[in-house]
Amino acid sequence: MDRYKLYINEESSKYLQIYNHIKDMIENNKLTKHEKLPPIRKLSELLTVNNTTVVKAYELLEKEGYIYKVVGSGSYVSDINGYKEETKIEINKDVITFDIGNPSMDMFPIDNFKKAINMALEKEGPAIFEYDDGLGYTNLRKSICKYLENLNINTNHDNIQIISGAQQGIDIICKSLIHYGDVVFVEEPTYSGALEVFKTRGAKVIGIPMLNDGIDIGLLKMKLDKIRPKLIYVMPNFQNPTGISYVTKKKEQLIKLAEEYDFYILEDDFISDFEFNSDDNKPLRSYDNSNRVIYIKSFSKILMPGLRIGFIEMPMEILNKVLWAKYSSDISTSGLIQRSLYYYMEYFDWYDYLKNVGKIYNIKFDACCYAINNKLKGKIKYNMPFGGINFFLELPRGYSSHDFKDFMLTKGVLILPGSYFFENPVDDRYFRINIASTSKDEIINGIDIISNNLDEFLQNYKYKSHFTNNKLFY
Amino acid sequence: MDRYKLYINEESSKYLQIYNHIKDMIENNKLTKHEKLPPIRKLSELLTVNNTTVVKAYELLEKEGYIYKVVGSGSYVSDINGYKEETKIEINKDVITFDIGNPSMDMFPIDNFKKAINMALEKEGPAIFEYDDGLGYTNLRKSICKYLENLNINTNHDNIQIISGAQQGIDIICKSLIHYGDVVFVEEPTYSGALEVFKTRGAKVIGIPMLNDGIDIGLLKMKLDKIRPKLIYVMPNFQNPTGISYVTKKKEQLIKLAEEYDFYILEDDFISDFEFNSDDNKPLRSYDNSNRVIYIKSFSKILMPGLRIGFIEMPMEILNKVLWAKYSSDISTSGLIQRSLYYYMEYFDWYDYLKNVGKIYNIKFDACCYAINNKLKGKIKYNMPFGGINFFLELPRGYSSHDFKDFMLTKGVLILPGSYFFENPVDDRYFRINIASTSKDEIINGIDIISNNLDEFLQNYKYKSHFTNNKLFY
Repeated sequence: MDRYKLYINEESSKYLQIYNHIKDMIENNKLTKHEKLPPIRKLSELLTVNNTTVVKAYELLEKEGYIYKVVGSGSYVSDINGYKEETKIEINKDVITFDIGNPSMDMFPIDNFKKAINMALEKEGPAIFEYDDGLGYTNLRKSICKYLENLNINTNHDNIQIISGAQQGIDIICKSLIHYGDVVFVEEPTYSGALEVFKTRGAKVIGIPMLNDGIDIGLLKMKLDKIRPKLIYVMPNFQNPTGISYVTKKKEQLIKLAEEYDFYILEDDFISDFEFNSDDNKPLRSYDNSNRVIYIKSFSKILMPGLRIGFIEMPMEILNKVLWAKYSSDISTSGLIQRSLYYYMEYFDWYDYLKNVGKIYNIKFDACCYAINNKLKGKIKYNMPFGGINFFLELPRGYSSHDFKDFMLTKGVLILPGSYFFENPVDDRYFRINIASTSKDEIINGIDIISNNLDEFLQNYKYKSHFTNNKLFY
Repeated sequence: MDRYKLYINEESSKYLQIYNHIKDMIENNKLTKHEKLPPIRKLSELLTVNNTTVVKAYELLEKEGYIYKVVGSGSYVSDINGYKEETKIEINKDVITFDIGNPSMDMFPIDNFKKAINMALEKEGPAIFEYDDGLGYTNLRKSICKYLENLNINTNHDNIQIISGAQQGIDIICKSLIHYGDVVFVEEPTYSGALEVFKTRGAKVIGIPMLNDGIDIGLLKMKLDKIRPKLIYVMPNFQNPTGISYVTKKKEQLIKLAEEYDFYILEDDFISDFEFNSDDNKPLRSYDNSNRVIYIKSFSKILMPGLRIGFIEMPMEILNKVLWAKYSSDISTSGLIQRSLYYYMEYFDWYDYLKNVGKIYNIKFDACCYAINNKLKGKIKYNMPFGGINFFLELPRGYSSHDFKDFMLTKGVLILPGSYFFENPVDDRYFRINIASTSKDEIINGIDIISNNLDEFLQNYKYKSHFTNNKLFY
């Protein structure tokens, strides 16, 4: 039984991990032909997953030809060793994935980006494979300054630090400014990957609730009178997970408080490029004239996450520390990726692509709003956001979003329990719907499925279980 | 004068940074034609650099046509705005750079690697631009296992974590295992980038001296009886900066101590692939049967540093923590880079390339040994290493290696002061010569220059100055 043990990564589909593990064992002849697999119940106990997860894994293994079932007896390793070629599975072909925030791959500007890569390879010498400048490739930093003008941010390329994605940006700012025991304020709920960085750095993390129009400024002020943070981490536009955007007044108030109480604001901007139905989604940074905002921009949602590139725009006074923290993190970001992005931004369809992605997100957002208002109003509580890719909904008291997730998965929809987004979750009723990877039709269909099966869930799952909060980022 | 201000990055040539800064100002018309530049003394005060640094910057600006000199008056912005094209300067064309450990770019397998990139782009779908699996691309991890067999390491791809370079590996292991106040042992002297990671994590760092045949095992044992580290960070082959390799017995002793006193050994391996003149340079990891060694492999010296890729091979018991630390650091390493490396390793000349690089390093190493023994014996103390790219030499008492660096730069050779490699440098007499980026002829020439000018230095610089230890990695 031991060889079936497997580290379960909370962040991706569990049944696929089990599927892959057993497939690997079969392909590497660690399981012999016609050998019996463990009973579903036993394997789910061993791996501390639900029965349904193992069922799904076995089903896929059978579908792909790796195992066969004998009714009343169990599952066995096939003779044929799977369909050798083309066993690549399409992830969650039949499940609507509202759980993850990865953009849909069919949007990616693959062809043009490939051309940009080849342009970089042609035009740049071997320096492309040499250590890069600590802050990053100068031409890219200059292109980024031009791009930032669209977001009402005027800056200089000397204030730009290239990073290997926004997660690294949060880590680097934390290393630069936060020492053991320092206080960090965060929105509550907030992105769990940021929570994790602050906590493992030994910071004291304090959550400030999100209201419908942005962070609770009154409560923030009360807290500030008692305790002084080094930093507050915020997503002022289309926040993750709530979808909430700050009204302009709150943006201005937050910057004033940062001046008055002398702390930095770490703005994590992943999608404020797009207008959606709001005309005020300029980054917080664009309101800042007093060097209080450190601005992190991710290209994961607006371009392609696998590039692992982004940037920090920062006040000059912290540049030295940031550059140093980047060095101690990974020296520099891949020169090939940096230069490819530069050529893509300058010589290909970057701005058109952005517009197009914005349109696609807008269509999906509107579809989701419409579906939720039509199908879930009165049944589940929610604050409808003004734009973005996240919707945060609330089950009635007495229900667990973890139960809800397991239940809805059996109906073909995957949602994300909200407890991941709280530093100290007191309740487990919230759940997040993310529409980045789903199509308009899937969104409509998915909300339909939730709506059609909600009553069954509410009838059968009250006070059923308590959740455990596993680590993962969303 | 203010606009001449500039953040000086300690890690790359300062005169080039000043050159670039002024060049940028000229190109962007922030300096007008025939405007006078600041006097050398004033600018060097403003930027807290040596006069010679500014002199070198001005000389290069003149050579490139950006400025012109008027004897007795000063330097002025040219009319011609530099040679528009081809102003790319070859770094340190006329200075022999023993200071940095970057491999020479003319070794890089550019053409084949470009083909590998295009193969990856062709064969892989859009998934290449999607978030990758947390541990890294499975096929690459399998290729790495095959490659590790050459280093006498037998492992499974489940034990491999892909990282964005060895520096990130150190950072990730530190995040995984070290908490505020924990004790970390290091070799003394050691790689400054590792020191920095441990210190900023809040660890207590204790240095164990290096002897000519490896770490001082006797002293290590004495320290272990008093204080228990979580981790010891070592480079058992061709250590940076000393060049020393552990004898086999010491490798075995270190692993036994790790078992006995229950700590992990973090092995940083950047070049043990090559034999040089030693027949015992197998990684420490290859002697480990008790899951004590965490093995970090850098591709920076054996392939190309700008890829920003490497891996950790680790005991299964820490996988969970490592995977998590990788996530919180940058989610995953670029899928494009990972897949390109996979195709390069599997379909191109990886193993031949390795052999070839080994030969080149060997020739350069032998040349440097010969030159040092011929020219510096009796004048400067050193322990000749058995291989590698680093030589660590010692000035007589009363001299500063920082003075030595400044002095030798005026003669056309750049060495690196040794104080960077000590946690608490008590003395500043050591300096490092690194031959990675220099050719055989440059090595011979460079040692000649040091030898020819040593007496002048020794006569004029005794008790001249105390050093300050600036942060940087070497």
